[in-house]
Amino acid sequence: MTLDDFSQYARHRVDDYLTQNLGQYQPASHLQDAMTYSLFNGGKRVRPMLAYASASLFGEANELTDASAAAIESIHAYSLIHDDLPAMDDDDLRRGKPTCHIQYDEATAILAGDALQTFAFELLSHPKHKNTATQLQLIQELVHASGRYGMVTGQMIDLANVGKQINIEALEQMHQHKTGALIRASVRMGAISTGAISEQDLSALDAYAAAIGLAFQVQDDIIDITSDTATLGKTQFSDEEANKPTYPKLLGLEGAQALAQTLRQQALAAISPFGDAAQPLVELANYIIDRNH
Amino acid sequence: MTLDDFSQYARHRVDDYLTQNLGQYQPASHLQDAMTYSLFNGGKRVRPMLAYASASLFGEANELTDASAAAIESIHAYSLIHDDLPAMDDDDLRRGKPTCHIQYDEATAILAGDALQTFAFELLSHPKHKNTATQLQLIQELVHASGRYGMVTGQMIDLANVGKQINIEALEQMHQHKTGALIRASVRMGAISTGAISEQDLSALDAYAAAIGLAFQVQDDIIDITSDTATLGKTQFSDEEANKPTYPKLLGLEGAQALAQTLRQQALAAISPFGDAAQPLVELANYIIDRNH
Repeated sequence: MTLDDFSQYARHRVDDYLTQNLGQYQPASHLQDAMTYSLFNGGKRVRPMLAYASASLFGEANELTDASAAAIESIHAYSLIHDDLPAMDDDDLRRGKPTCHIQYDEATAILAGDALQTFAFELLSHPKHKNTATQLQLIQELVHASGRYGMVTGQMIDLANVGKQINIEALEQMHQHKTGALIRASVRMGAISTGAISEQDLSALDAYAAAIGLAFQVQDDIIDITSDTATLGKTQFSDEEANKPTYPKLLGLEGAQALAQTLRQQALAAISPFGDAAQPLVELANYIIDRNH
Repeated sequence: MTLDDFSQYARHRVDDYLTQNLGQYQPASHLQDAMTYSLFNGGKRVRPMLAYASASLFGEANELTDASAAAIESIHAYSLIHDDLPAMDDDDLRRGKPTCHIQYDEATAILAGDALQTFAFELLSHPKHKNTATQLQLIQELVHASGRYGMVTGQMIDLANVGKQINIEALEQMHQHKTGALIRASVRMGAISTGAISEQDLSALDAYAAAIGLAFQVQDDIIDITSDTATLGKTQFSDEEANKPTYPKLLGLEGAQALAQTLRQQALAAISPFGDAAQPLVELANYIIDRNH
């Protein structure tokens, strides 16, 4: 399967699953409109792709893989809504469209984000799955990646760093929390959704995820200064203007590009024991590092 | 046990459990400060009291009862932080102290609320409980009460109602979602935490919870116009000024007081089959309806 085919496969599965499970709760139609708007805003579905690619190492993706991919994407969508708020990054555009608080209003955006977080746990805890031990393990993974041990703390560190000189270790700690934790959870949850995974296999996946998670950020920083606004769907130099620390600032553009290549090698080495079954994960690593938007 | 004794017992248990489980995650110290500030701001712990009182119908409260009480209180705390934000109710004071976004800043308040939601699911999903079926059932209850089927939708309806003439059915629908759902979850989760509860018992508890949940709001509305600012710890007539629909506005003060009494009778009738074991729930119903702040 080419990466394009795999991308379509993952997108269809996760989008269908999200649509089916969102359903329609009548008293909350305005809220669900805002949740749906943010869930289906043209995102690349990288995290669901990682979950499905990781599941494919161990067997067929099942409904708990779908629930994992959808839950992760809901957490991702909620985090973007809240990060875009005026009190946070104050962004009006996301992927070329008005951000949630511009399209609706701030109160609706805050609540849609809140409800999307709960929705993620709704998907994973749903009684239809009838696999309580695995469901609970998936919930633990998502909690760890998205709350105070992960994403929320990353955003907190990010906000605290604006306008500050920080070193490469501090930048890495921020990214490990802000985006790395959820990327790691995508890879781990995809695997766990298929059954019992050995500690050895989870360690290999962790090493892969750590490398691509960081590479994802390094590449984002590179794109911010090398790609134009039309390609980005957001304002070029937005990190620059926001006075945020970035890899090109700390390492220079060439240094950042070299780091991305090193991380690619680390990622591919980590999953080499899985052989041909890891082809989707290999292609995803290459995609993350070679993309220009 | 008197209500005062029971209140102290519940407060100690839930506060100890929250403190132990919050621990300290170093990279997030500022975030955890804000979470702790909002969790320990002098709240009355009504929901934990309900959970412990409900558990006592079926046996001894156990660690899953503690986790339930603490998780519900975390959800309650997150909802207050977000409701107080400038884009929502824009309140500077909560129980006589600066609200979270005044004490810290708006971004920190949004993130502390987000992390408190995740923390609730952390408490319930923790592997130490080793009771996956009950844990999952408790998570399902909390999801249903706090997300789009419950609290968040209630806040959404509340915001949409500001300045509008609505009828008593619409007001009740709003309160059932905004506060009723979490009060119902407190009573149900307390029971479920002790083991398998019959549908009949859960139905009796639902009827009790529906009555006290509504009574809680009716009494809140009454207090807003009959109690002074010092007793309230927030501004008297704040509903009035916010131009919010209330029971006294729709029914008159006497009509609202009569409704509270009717709801008290309904609540007590619902739990009469439990006999003496229901004494804590009886006292809590009386407290909710007789309080003046």
